[in-house]
Amino acid sequence: MKARIVTLPGDGVGPEVLDAAVAVLHAVAERSGHTFEFESHLIGGCAIDATGEPLPAATLEACKKADAVFLGAVGGPKWSDPQAKVRPEQGLLAIRAALGVYANLRPLQVHPSLASLSPLKNEKLKNVDVLFVRELTGGAYFGAKTRTTDTATDECKYTVAEVERVTRRAFELARERRQHVTSVDKANVLETSRLWRSTVTRVAAEYPDVKLEHQLVDSMAMLLLTQPSRYDVVVTENLFGDILTDEAAALAGSLGLLPSASLGEGKIGLYEPIHGSAPDIAGQGVANPLGAILSAALLLRHSLDLDVEATTIEAAVSHVLTNGPHTRDIGGKAGTADVRDAVIAALDDVA
Amino acid sequence: MKARIVTLPGDGVGPEVLDAAVAVLHAVAERSGHTFEFESHLIGGCAIDATGEPLPAATLEACKKADAVFLGAVGGPKWSDPQAKVRPEQGLLAIRAALGVYANLRPLQVHPSLASLSPLKNEKLKNVDVLFVRELTGGAYFGAKTRTTDTATDECKYTVAEVERVTRRAFELARERRQHVTSVDKANVLETSRLWRSTVTRVAAEYPDVKLEHQLVDSMAMLLLTQPSRYDVVVTENLFGDILTDEAAALAGSLGLLPSASLGEGKIGLYEPIHGSAPDIAGQGVANPLGAILSAALLLRHSLDLDVEATTIEAAVSHVLTNGPHTRDIGGKAGTADVRDAVIAALDDVA
Ligand SMILES: CC(C)[C@H](C(=O)O)[C@@H](O)C(=O)O
Ligand SMILES: CC(C)[C@H](C(=O)O)[C@@H](O)C(=O)O
Repeated sequence: MKARIVTLPGDGVGPEVLDAAVAVLHAVAERSGHTFEFESHLIGGCAIDATGEPLPAATLEACKKADAVFLGAVGGPKWSDPQAKVRPEQGLLAIRAALGVYANLRPLQVHPSLASLSPLKNEKLKNVDVLFVRELTGGAYFGAKTRTTDTATDECKYTVAEVERVTRRAFELARERRQHVTSVDKANVLETSRLWRSTVTRVAAEYPDVKLEHQLVDSMAMLLLTQPSRYDVVVTENLFGDILTDEAAALAGSLGLLPSASLGEGKIGLYEPIHGSAPDIAGQGVANPLGAILSAALLLRHSLDLDVEATTIEAAVSHVLTNGPHTRDIGGKAGTADVRDAVIAALDDVA
Repeated sequence: MKARIVTLPGDGVGPEVLDAAVAVLHAVAERSGHTFEFESHLIGGCAIDATGEPLPAATLEACKKADAVFLGAVGGPKWSDPQAKVRPEQGLLAIRAALGVYANLRPLQVHPSLASLSPLKNEKLKNVDVLFVRELTGGAYFGAKTRTTDTATDECKYTVAEVERVTRRAFELARERRQHVTSVDKANVLETSRLWRSTVTRVAAEYPDVKLEHQLVDSMAMLLLTQPSRYDVVVTENLFGDILTDEAAALAGSLGLLPSASLGEGKIGLYEPIHGSAPDIAGQGVANPLGAILSAALLLRHSLDLDVEATTIEAAVSHVLTNGPHTRDIGGKAGTADVRDAVIAALDDVA
């Protein structure tokens, strides 16, 4: 097959980890006979510097024509004044909205060889395998905002249709897994959460084979630590998903390992490691590329239907996690390129 | 001294743990010569059953005349339909607002004898001593809400004055501790967080002896697990505080241990254990009363200026944590009354 992938390296370590992941995709293409065409565009801080806009029109246009969009990270101290009118994060939010990728999938597993890096006790980490489905294009992220000298407001808004589609996605995914969905809200306080809860409950009736449970977001923040292996698919609104997935990421031992896929109605998806631009280590060639490489695997699976190739990348990453080399964040001394090369070499071993 | 304390036992285990804590206060009164007068009123589900209202007028009136208000817990399956017009939680939110207790203090320490119960590795728990200051009367909890068949909204609103007063409280408290304040927001996305951040930064200049650091709420959810001992005072808005304090509570090994104090401008405060009504164990006499007993200590300290007596209760609780008896949630077999009696007995040992 032939696929067009737009890369958005962004800022900080974004370009470094994306380069490594693109090299892995090239290696997969060679071995499988597929053709992946890459086209790189600006987003975030570097786009502000070059064009004044965090999401230039040319970038958006290219993304809309692509089969998949592969993003590094945005932001950094240079653009971090929260009072600034134009901010790198606006580019990220705008591309999510423009592509309509309302379901952000964040899988969490803890590789046995990294359990020692987790702040959680080993016995808690056994059988942890959670798939977060975070609503990504609604809620307080996209609601009306006001600001005067004295007052600020953010509106959190959800429609039934917005909740239905992300809920269906979560239940479809749960069917292929352990048939269990946990929906997280704050229905004892928020009106949007009451709409969320009643909509999820109604949609769940279409999936009698999948068990549904509701949790309040505060309890869930605790349960993720005390009983992490209890959860299969966890579906929640945008801001709760932001907080809970970062909390959960700590369990894996390093943020640098974790991938994400953001999906909408069509095949086009937005793929990004969940770590940020890590300005403290940018430009040093030491960033962990595995979050980006695993995001490339999700890209193959969800946008290109190349499940075998995706699984091969995941197996190669697992091989490298077991045998090394490891970057600093997971206790090793290797650089980004060493890990990239090891993953590529492992593609043949695991195939 | 003579003090009038209104007790609001509420639902579930609320009355059981409050009874135990009131017994401890009686014991303290006897030993110290102070007079505490108690008056019990309805709130939450039991108030709905009796009067149709989660916060009856008689309750509110009594609270306003008291020196301190001491609450158990509200809610339970009987009243848990989130679509119901009248819900127990409304009573809790209404009393917080009516008393103007905008600063919710939630101290977190991990008692050495309970480290084995924590999901976190022991080395992470060393020197954990965090005081959360959660804004309690603003934000999405109290903003305008709308609901149609198709759409729901919650408005999160903050004024500069609301942020200033809770920030000042946090800095005052930090002065008496390790002179470090971490302010948590989501300033890269929310307008209220940008107001929050600029206000906190400005107020911080009045406290040159205290160091201020800002964290995004998603990062903070992770940092609480990876570097919990780094934090001293953590100040944040209502909903973020709800989530982060429950997450942090998991570190202590049991929710049942943790107290809270909610303070406003005057001396009157609202004191409650942070655990909920625990309907699964209600009526069995097995609930852990230590969260309520430690809340009684906070009541003595913050509303009655009885610091010595407060410290005596805390020392007695620590003695019981070290030597037992322990309730089930912390690995023991004792009942609520056993623990109550042990704390009272320990008052003399530690005095
Ligand atoms: C950079 C920021 C706007 C973003 C978010 O909050 O969604 C990030 O934290 C994430 O989770 O992808
Ligand atoms: C019961 C609920 C409304 C309450 C809150 O969200 O404030 C509780 O979770 C708390 O933290 O005291």
